[in-house]
Amino acid sequence: MKITKLTNNISLKRQLEGGNEEQLKTVRNVLQDVRENGDEALRKYSEMWDGIKLDDFRVSQEEIEEAVANFDEQLKQDLEEAAANIRYYHEAQKRDGYKLPLANGSWLAQRIIPLDAVGLYVPGGSAAYPSSVLMNVIPAQVAGVERIVITSPAGKDGKLPAAVLVAASILGVNEIYKVGGAQAIAALAYGTETIAPVDKITGPGNIYVALAKREVFGEVAIDMIAGPSEIAVLADDSAYADEVAADLLSQAEHDALACAVLITTSEKLANEVAEEVEKQLRELPREAIARKSIENFGHIYIAESMEQAIEAVNSLAPEHLEVVTENAESDAEKIRHAGAIFVGRYSSEPVGDYFAGTNHVLPTNSTARFASGLNVDDFIKRSNVVYYSEQTWQESAPKIARLARMEGLEGHARAVESRGWTKGDK
Amino acid sequence: MKITKLTNNISLKRQLEGGNEEQLKTVRNVLQDVRENGDEALRKYSEMWDGIKLDDFRVSQEEIEEAVANFDEQLKQDLEEAAANIRYYHEAQKRDGYKLPLANGSWLAQRIIPLDAVGLYVPGGSAAYPSSVLMNVIPAQVAGVERIVITSPAGKDGKLPAAVLVAASILGVNEIYKVGGAQAIAALAYGTETIAPVDKITGPGNIYVALAKREVFGEVAIDMIAGPSEIAVLADDSAYADEVAADLLSQAEHDALACAVLITTSEKLANEVAEEVEKQLRELPREAIARKSIENFGHIYIAESMEQAIEAVNSLAPEHLEVVTENAESDAEKIRHAGAIFVGRYSSEPVGDYFAGTNHVLPTNSTARFASGLNVDDFIKRSNVVYYSEQTWQESAPKIARLARMEGLEGHARAVESRGWTKGDK
Repeated sequence: MKITKLTNNISLKRQLEGGNEEQLKTVRNVLQDVRENGDEALRKYSEMWDGIKLDDFRVSQEEIEEAVANFDEQLKQDLEEAAANIRYYHEAQKRDGYKLPLANGSWLAQRIIPLDAVGLYVPGGSAAYPSSVLMNVIPAQVAGVERIVITSPAGKDGKLPAAVLVAASILGVNEIYKVGGAQAIAALAYGTETIAPVDKITGPGNIYVALAKREVFGEVAIDMIAGPSEIAVLADDSAYADEVAADLLSQAEHDALACAVLITTSEKLANEVAEEVEKQLRELPREAIARKSIENFGHIYIAESMEQAIEAVNSLAPEHLEVVTENAESDAEKIRHAGAIFVGRYSSEPVGDYFAGTNHVLPTNSTARFASGLNVDDFIKRSNVVYYSEQTWQESAPKIARLARMEGLEGHARAVESRGWTKGDK
Repeated sequence: MKITKLTNNISLKRQLEGGNEEQLKTVRNVLQDVRENGDEALRKYSEMWDGIKLDDFRVSQEEIEEAVANFDEQLKQDLEEAAANIRYYHEAQKRDGYKLPLANGSWLAQRIIPLDAVGLYVPGGSAAYPSSVLMNVIPAQVAGVERIVITSPAGKDGKLPAAVLVAASILGVNEIYKVGGAQAIAALAYGTETIAPVDKITGPGNIYVALAKREVFGEVAIDMIAGPSEIAVLADDSAYADEVAADLLSQAEHDALACAVLITTSEKLANEVAEEVEKQLRELPREAIARKSIENFGHIYIAESMEQAIEAVNSLAPEHLEVVTENAESDAEKIRHAGAIFVGRYSSEPVGDYFAGTNHVLPTNSTARFASGLNVDDFIKRSNVVYYSEQTWQESAPKIARLARMEGLEGHARAVESRGWTKGDK
């Protein structure tokens, strides 16, 4: 791992693949086809791309029950405990609107209303990600969303991974479809004979899924387009090199484009971590991926002071930050820009990926400067409500009319004044 | 105005101009030019498109003071009162994060942090929109944003409209630049020698501004891309036709693509409103615009029942809704999808455009199904914080490691387990 002195111009931004013209064309064709031909198009693409023939996309209650019955009991308990922790953390985000009284019986209010329906895309492929199900579904449930749909490509056996079905079952979600790719996003956005449309689509996916989400954005809401994972570790002499190295590798193993960075005031730790990373890399099952990430985007920076180091972290705005310093809690308070912050030696980053309760869907590529991790507010919307009494109207109408005329909007002025126009009683 | 019986398939969605290839190419060139050449590029485009030569883009303190000194005192007071009302409504949206204690000294927290810097684009052209300044700046100020920048194209005289400067001055904003168009968005996103970059850009603009905002999205945050205005009025026999007509026209006068719709249980009101709209249209200064809007997108629907009418409003998800019925307050409570709701006869929609305190930046084109008006949360972000004590780590490490291995992420499991690896004390 490269070690250099910290300068003021460090960044973890990477040029990310945005999809090429041909991919976009494919996606647009799929979207239009599903919009026009519904289930028939879904069947066509499932056969073409996933190599499976499906009469019925919906996962049956029997399939869910079978997955649950055959699942490892210990793992099921672990998932249940994780779900309870995630629910506990997100429950605190729930909030009511408010009503503000004005003079003369008038009032203003903000109403908080959950979305009617949301869809979660769960990627297929070699691994199953039940933690994704928990992290996306629970905030929506806490928000009060009534209809939650999961869609994911089936394997060659025509089934979804048991772990995904078990996670859904733990949460009480049973509207699950075996549809993947851009066609799944189209189905969620436009609806088909089988799948009613939703108001928001969340969840990660490959480049076709990401492009499809971008295309349907506006028609429905989408979550952020997630980039490769990142971790920054802020550490001083008090940190253990093997633990820091293991944590850096935990994110590097996600993706060759993942980015793992150590910023430390300790030259000794810097050298030890570099050695440890190499040592641990050699024993990692996903060595090939993690090595590419470390070689291309891994970096150890030696800072002159903790102040300089903290400033550097704020300029990185990393997705994940670990603070492993003597004064971890107070150092962490100085961080303004990070998706999630793990404070102290025992708060290893994967604690938050799976179990602690915080959400693992987090802003990447420095967008933590202005974006947040997935949370309950992502599944509600707000309505402003105004009630003006006759007296409030009377007092404010001349002011409003003047402001409207200043902007050249005579019709606005007249609308407000119309309540005073001569007319009979009702 | 067309009058038809209400059916279940009404919609106010319009096919909106998304900009053509040539416009997009122009915008991309401008963005790249400003990114590479900074102020020099800004000067070039200001001369090319706005026809003005500027040495200094920043509005001077003297210019602001001059605008304030020469401004109509009554209008200034009206703006001040509006600003106070808007602040009052938005203050209630401010909130703190939270900290949740766990067993054994561990805790989870959510921290709420204001964005560092935001930029507001104020469009130029024939009219000045000081209300836009109030509606965009105040939520950012309430959120705690420290740096707020306004940018707007100067007129041929090299000046910004006095009303915009006065509104900014009332709010204490003095970082104001005379730059418009796509080049202004580029300057806010990338920064130049004169203009430091911001984290989020809000505010409406022409098609070039809208395309530029879309292009820089990801680099910085943006607000929604606003569509033409909409109003739906839900009314029964108790409503006055001249008032309903005036309110419909107040939105129709905004834009030929604006949409004004009445849904009523009263055939009598329907006929009277249609007549009144025609009568008032003939006397409206912006008749040409409003007439196009009414002819193309205006509609009166006669509902069989209030239930059917309310269901129809929810399927429209209008930007603005007025509820002018016998039981306005309880009918309004049944609305799930509307950007802003105006309850009762005296709550004419322009009341909210200028003065009541609610925000007038609202979701259009049925996006109120999943989107909210501009609010304080648009100017903050959230960080998740995790602190695990040694004991909590000890208890949960085996569970986390099992979950990680289930997903095939051995590096994650080892990171958590590394705290237990044999090593010396620090």
